[in-house]
Amino acid sequence: MEYGREFARDISQAVVGRLPRYFRYLGELKDEGVTRISSRELSNLMHVTASQIRQDLNQFGGFGQQGYGYNVEYLYSEIGKILGIDETHQLILVGAGNLGQALVNYMNFQRRGFLFRGIFDKNPALYGKKIRDMEVQPMENLEQFVRENNIDIAVLTIPKASAESVADILSGCGIRGIWNFAHCDLNVPPHIQVENVHLSESLMKLSFRLKNDGSV
Amino acid sequence: MEYGREFARDISQAVVGRLPRYFRYLGELKDEGVTRISSRELSNLMHVTASQIRQDLNQFGGFGQQGYGYNVEYLYSEIGKILGIDETHQLILVGAGNLGQALVNYMNFQRRGFLFRGIFDKNPALYGKKIRDMEVQPMENLEQFVRENNIDIAVLTIPKASAESVADILSGCGIRGIWNFAHCDLNVPPHIQVENVHLSESLMKLSFRLKNDGSV
Repeated sequence: MEYGREFARDISQAVVGRLPRYFRYLGELKDEGVTRISSRELSNLMHVTASQIRQDLNQFGGFGQQGYGYNVEYLYSEIGKILGIDETHQLILVGAGNLGQALVNYMNFQRRGFLFRGIFDKNPALYGKKIRDMEVQPMENLEQFVRENNIDIAVLTIPKASAESVADILSGCGIRGIWNFAHCDLNVPPHIQVENVHLSESLMKLSFRLKNDGSV
Repeated sequence: MEYGREFARDISQAVVGRLPRYFRYLGELKDEGVTRISSRELSNLMHVTASQIRQDLNQFGGFGQQGYGYNVEYLYSEIGKILGIDETHQLILVGAGNLGQALVNYMNFQRRGFLFRGIFDKNPALYGKKIRDMEVQPMENLEQFVRENNIDIAVLTIPKASAESVADILSGCGIRGIWNFAHCDLNVPPHIQVENVHLSESLMKLSFRLKNDGSV
């Protein structure tokens, strides 16, 4: 349990950004029954240099052994611990539109221990509507629900205009992380972690590459 | 028009990644009627150092003037050109589930010139269903539709299992870019640009930061 924490100090943001991709590939290898893999093989699979792989994975200590390679199951499980997905997380969704519903219905999150516990919206027309056995609740219930259910992550799929005020409410009632799909940056106290998914910005990066024929 | 292309060679991936955020803030300033802004003010607003801002924006030539700052409207429009969103893009959606529908219904993309022209799904139960005046079409229509409508971007909101085969079809019929929400990396010819949105990986990064109290 303390493993991830212990090493976290030395892990750069860039490496953290790459860990989920290692985790995904190792999970697929594991599902295919592969028990060990060399950095060279992993390199071919992931289109990343073998030296990059060794450099990234060596940060976590002796996962790889000379002449043996990496133990797939072990490395998969250790990276999972580092990413904190050996523990379960309690989530609420704020904003029950199409995007929010898609996220709640995506079973992969559940498989990874991200469990949606409640759904909130400010539109009375949606109150009581069931999404995966959860009834959409009014925003007035939000604070109490978060406190009583030990919710640690709020997923915001609401317009920019209301995101800041909702983030304020969440900051006051014990939320530890916000997964923010609203098209804005949130000002929250430093003890709250925000991970943004700015879809428009992702699309603009694609547009840039189209214009420049992928030259960057 | 040639502006972006001319400068693109020297722009690092990291700067490209930051441009959409500059674009968003400048757009908001423009909407608020702000005509000019110093790197110091922009720095306070964006929580980025002023020197980072100067370094990033100076890559595109003389947008800023000593003692004047940046002309908001001009910088906004030039960054838009560099990002290629001064041109319109023709999009199709492949996969008409909740996530796909959310993307088609998100008017901000349209405002930025990303125009959805067709929607495809392999589920016959969805054929003919209307989403924003477009009827969901069978996959068999995909190739011809892409060719006849000069589609340049395909948005994939389909499961991993079918993503690779759909990408193969798209590669053969003139698509230039794929906005990929499937939970896998796509192997496509180098002339096709892929921008991935791996939602699970974003959630894992949040989980990592929760476990390590944001220490990275």
